[in-house]
Amino acid sequence: MNKKNLIIFLILLSVTFFSGCTGFTGNFSEKSGNIESIEDSGSGICGNDSEVLYQVSTIDALLQGVYDGVLPVAELETHGDFGIGTFDGLEGEMLALNGSYYQIKTDGIAYPVSGEMTTPFATVTYFEADESFRLEEPANLTELEAFLDLNLPSENLFYAVRVDGDFSYIKARSVPRQEKPYPKLADAVSTQSVFEFENISGTLVGFRTPEYVKGVNVPGYHLHFITEDRSAGGHVLDLEMESGDAALDITSAFFMELPASGDFYNVELGQDLQADMEKVEK
Amino acid sequence: MNKKNLIIFLILLSVTFFSGCTGFTGNFSEKSGNIESIEDSGSGICGNDSEVLYQVSTIDALLQGVYDGVLPVAELETHGDFGIGTFDGLEGEMLALNGSYYQIKTDGIAYPVSGEMTTPFATVTYFEADESFRLEEPANLTELEAFLDLNLPSENLFYAVRVDGDFSYIKARSVPRQEKPYPKLADAVSTQSVFEFENISGTLVGFRTPEYVKGVNVPGYHLHFITEDRSAGGHVLDLEMESGDAALDITSAFFMELPASGDFYNVELGQDLQADMEKVEK
Repeated sequence: MNKKNLIIFLILLSVTFFSGCTGFTGNFSEKSGNIESIEDSGSGICGNDSEVLYQVSTIDALLQGVYDGVLPVAELETHGDFGIGTFDGLEGEMLALNGSYYQIKTDGIAYPVSGEMTTPFATVTYFEADESFRLEEPANLTELEAFLDLNLPSENLFYAVRVDGDFSYIKARSVPRQEKPYPKLADAVSTQSVFEFENISGTLVGFRTPEYVKGVNVPGYHLHFITEDRSAGGHVLDLEMESGDAALDITSAFFMELPASGDFYNVELGQDLQADMEKVEK
Repeated sequence: MNKKNLIIFLILLSVTFFSGCTGFTGNFSEKSGNIESIEDSGSGICGNDSEVLYQVSTIDALLQGVYDGVLPVAELETHGDFGIGTFDGLEGEMLALNGSYYQIKTDGIAYPVSGEMTTPFATVTYFEADESFRLEEPANLTELEAFLDLNLPSENLFYAVRVDGDFSYIKARSVPRQEKPYPKLADAVSTQSVFEFENISGTLVGFRTPEYVKGVNVPGYHLHFITEDRSAGGHVLDLEMESGDAALDITSAFFMELPASGDFYNVELGQDLQADMEKVEK
């Protein structure tokens, strides 16, 4: 190989690696996805996150009052353009859609999020629809979830769920910033603000996780909502959908990064927090 | 930059990326570790796996009889040089130590493993000791685990556990290859072979996982054993240690890759399999 060819070879090689480490694609991966690399995370994982559900901390740690932000949004967004979570001090609901991250505060308004803001708990992925459905019949939340369940290839995988729809009614909430010593989540939500939307278009963003990850994430569906103009929303408590387009992103890999210090180290996580979960999610 | 410097720059750049994508290190990462990239996996994740516990499938799927190998060892070993698991058809106990993978069959002998062999369930990492202890007092399995528990920074993280010791007694087992239709694991182990070692030196290899991953991995300690000459071993059922050197690798990130087809899709995983786990592990 002469010098010129060597330079070209090395440039190509470097570009390949800069463009996302390897860009290997898997069984489910129809596209290469938006690939970024993590620069400061505790794991140093990098690569094609498009078929990986990435999670910070555990739902049980949040239920037990571990609210200190541990990961900057600037890092979180290298793992996904789509997802839900909360912010440092449990201040508001997080929603990420098409790469834009929003903080829905207790006034119901969706604020832009800066990269320096941190999260104590969030779940994100790069959304790529594997299955899409048009829903023409009205459905409440239970019916919508039952319809989606009928269309899952397996109850044992993870799914990112997106529904763009017209809703006659949506009941959503957001939680105010908590002060230390932090109360448990079941107590913190007693101070939540609840918003009711009528005849509104918008998008449901969230996940369905399998029953066996109880303690780690919320088994079943966990959905947040944002209006079509991306101005308002919240954690979904109830809804009536007129019609909509649902999409599922089948996700067979799960990556969880735990807090490397702080309250997480000493919080008690062994017990069954199902009763707390019921209070918090409904 | 002249041509010569450009070549040097590009060579350095290429080497950097070949040596593990980015080589970023995290909070716990004292060294960059042995880094490889995945070539055909469902996730396309690559990077510094040294602080990531990597797992194929779930323990509950194994308990329910999902024994078909889904990941070649050639790929598994890109995620770690240390770990435990089993093989296609539940044929023997897997143990990986210092980058060598072994299959301990029902004759108790540790056989070398080829890259084409596959696993239905395995947990591996790149082992880097974060804490080390010399144990001078004799200890049975319960006492050894209790001692290690006293030295954990938190019960809520994952740990790779290595103990090089002199043992007055070790009781270990291996399970024979199963035929379809596969029995549940609690039934399959009724055909296990049990080996007793006396006055033997060797290494315990395994993990301690937190209680909240019940259903996903084995909560608490899960250890396999291999003799000092790496000729024999098994899944540890009981032991009496004279003295030894224990090391813990604190692991705050967990990556789980689920089977993208096959029995895993339809197996029932929602229920509590604690009773089955007791039968299988003890």
